[in-house]
Amino acid sequence: MCQPPAVGLSITLSVLAESADASAALVIPSSPVGDHTDIEAVRAFARECDVVTFDHEQVPAEVLAALEADGVILHPSRAALVFAQDKLAMRRRLTDIGISCPVWTQVRDAATLQAFGDAVGWPVIVKTPRGGYDGKGVRVVGSPDEVADWLAYVARDAAAAVEAQGAEVHGAEVQDDELQDDEAIGGGPFVNGLLAEEKVNFVREIAMLVVRSPSGQAGAWQVVETVQTDGICTQVLAPAPGLDPRLAAVATEAGLRIAGELGVTGVMAVEMFEVTDAVTGDPAYLVNELAMRPHNSGHWTIDGAVTSQFEQHLRAVLDLPLGDTSPRAPWTVMGNVLGGDHAQLYPTYRHLLARDPGLKIHLYGKGVRPGRKIGHVNVSGADLDDLRARAGHASDFLQGVITE
Amino acid sequence: MCQPPAVGLSITLSVLAESADASAALVIPSSPVGDHTDIEAVRAFARECDVVTFDHEQVPAEVLAALEADGVILHPSRAALVFAQDKLAMRRRLTDIGISCPVWTQVRDAATLQAFGDAVGWPVIVKTPRGGYDGKGVRVVGSPDEVADWLAYVARDAAAAVEAQGAEVHGAEVQDDELQDDEAIGGGPFVNGLLAEEKVNFVREIAMLVVRSPSGQAGAWQVVETVQTDGICTQVLAPAPGLDPRLAAVATEAGLRIAGELGVTGVMAVEMFEVTDAVTGDPAYLVNELAMRPHNSGHWTIDGAVTSQFEQHLRAVLDLPLGDTSPRAPWTVMGNVLGGDHAQLYPTYRHLLARDPGLKIHLYGKGVRPGRKIGHVNVSGADLDDLRARAGHASDFLQGVITE
Repeated sequence: MCQPPAVGLSITLSVLAESADASAALVIPSSPVGDHTDIEAVRAFARECDVVTFDHEQVPAEVLAALEADGVILHPSRAALVFAQDKLAMRRRLTDIGISCPVWTQVRDAATLQAFGDAVGWPVIVKTPRGGYDGKGVRVVGSPDEVADWLAYVARDAAAAVEAQGAEVHGAEVQDDELQDDEAIGGGPFVNGLLAEEKVNFVREIAMLVVRSPSGQAGAWQVVETVQTDGICTQVLAPAPGLDPRLAAVATEAGLRIAGELGVTGVMAVEMFEVTDAVTGDPAYLVNELAMRPHNSGHWTIDGAVTSQFEQHLRAVLDLPLGDTSPRAPWTVMGNVLGGDHAQLYPTYRHLLARDPGLKIHLYGKGVRPGRKIGHVNVSGADLDDLRARAGHASDFLQGVITE
Repeated sequence: MCQPPAVGLSITLSVLAESADASAALVIPSSPVGDHTDIEAVRAFARECDVVTFDHEQVPAEVLAALEADGVILHPSRAALVFAQDKLAMRRRLTDIGISCPVWTQVRDAATLQAFGDAVGWPVIVKTPRGGYDGKGVRVVGSPDEVADWLAYVARDAAAAVEAQGAEVHGAEVQDDELQDDEAIGGGPFVNGLLAEEKVNFVREIAMLVVRSPSGQAGAWQVVETVQTDGICTQVLAPAPGLDPRLAAVATEAGLRIAGELGVTGVMAVEMFEVTDAVTGDPAYLVNELAMRPHNSGHWTIDGAVTSQFEQHLRAVLDLPLGDTSPRAPWTVMGNVLGGDHAQLYPTYRHLLARDPGLKIHLYGKGVRPGRKIGHVNVSGADLDDLRARAGHASDFLQGVITE
């Protein structure tokens, strides 16, 4: 989705594609195939680039370190990206800079988790610090037994780390004091234990999207509501309907502060809970997750904002001046399209184009698999209920949930 | 510029590029190099396509005929495209279906031109029927002497056609009675003589953009003003300021009728003169030129309309349902960027992004040559004067006419 704005801005993209038929490779002439965990493949790719950026956060720290050692310009940098890769590092850092988060703790054993749950109330949320996505790596648990398997991995990875301690540093275990005062990066996904959080009694989920350039110019789009179904975002409403303007301002300020303090470059999405302050009764936010890349909660900007998150990300990572983040319409609704029973999208897509000439359909060129995000639709206008109904119909129809 | 909407619609483009560094080849993975006048190259290319369309009208009739003989689906078809390739054929056909045009005649010799000029008044406009572009192939003349060179070509091509008559039809000379009752296609660009037209005393130049699909669904965008400087369009104002609503309706109806009568598929631009009716004093239109493809006068739609001309062209040639042509803002101004003194655009482009965060810059990835259209800018909003000033500044600055 960076290719359309790149065309107009005369920016030449090159993508390290996981396979020759990867979505991005279908639309970008320069798309060598390679694995993002293969240090030599990534190094060879990066040598041909002026700037390297990411469309997911799963590139291993040792690969990032090798690139930085080669003098490759990374945006976001390894030092910033760790806070999107590691939820424990993120929670610790946000807490340090005074950003509101759910009550949390680091858990390495059942006793700590039991004590935490007893203090904040059961059930609690337990997350694997690395590799979670769309509800994967997240459990709502009523007792430590429900994460016994994860706690076993923690013990295993901790033992392996102790064994390796003092041994020569090799590819799979990079120590970097600058990044982490007291923790190893690498060494297995569970080496630092688990993240436990209170189960937040939230009003709804909201998200804010910020952008920051290496020069420090920053911008924010309007705060949106992310409507979730079974842990997956189904619609985004831009702006978040009825959002208290004070909360909008505070949430925006929080996003910009996070970007600045963490040294984020490019687009960052901050997923938040809207909650009611127990003392004042005022609306407030708690930060849930960070994503340091154009994000699903910002897909509405493609059609709904003067500058889309994808154009803005390109501008930011190239340290070009940023664009206007103003909305183009009073409301824009984004509806995610999940893979459903239609293996062939074309017949439904034709039908939708005919039914709603104002619908903007964005398909990702991915194979259709049940539950996979394979595209989204945007609709803009003045009547939110109408837009929600149209986006909802389009999502359901493409997905095969409804057939007319 | 078709690549951005193709990405979202999951349409795979392939382009027959004039060179490996052609603009389109830079952004489309499948871009074999070949000459659009080379029948075998075009046939081989077309065999891999579901539908073939065009980004200019210069593909020779014999190439189009060969494709149609191969069963290739062309949109627009050869039968429609001839009216955009040949200005004499266009004038004759539009006159036949009652569309208002400047007074015109076909000229094969000096005497006919003299008589025409004496009748409508000198100076008159003389055009070569084929190959004209941006004022090339057009002269404002005070006497037949001023096109003596063209008239010599007419005599030469006519003599060659007579010589070939009765001889076996070969590649360079295709006769097709269905297309032209009384004229040869091919056989030299001057074989049918010249087109002479009255010099119209117009109020301003306007343009309307229509789209029509093979199924016959059609649509139109709002009528725009095309501001011309030295025969080249410098700005497009959408909609045309102060346009009489009756004229807007009549001009739109004329465009839709032309598309239907000529069997146009895809996007067509109809360039018109706004004139004052000599009898009634009412505003009226005269058709100047037709272009059967997305056109410079429609570049405002990329940022200013719900469906851009490029997305619409793709939808139309694939016979997909058409999109909403509504504007996204009260006004959109497009400013053309011509090649100027800056061989390196990057420094000025950076400056403009910083100066005007709402500016949408579209560069074509072409080499900079003085006078060449190398890009355009769009700005949308509620204050037309402000938008014109911003678009004008951006064009002039990129071009090197001003330096701050």
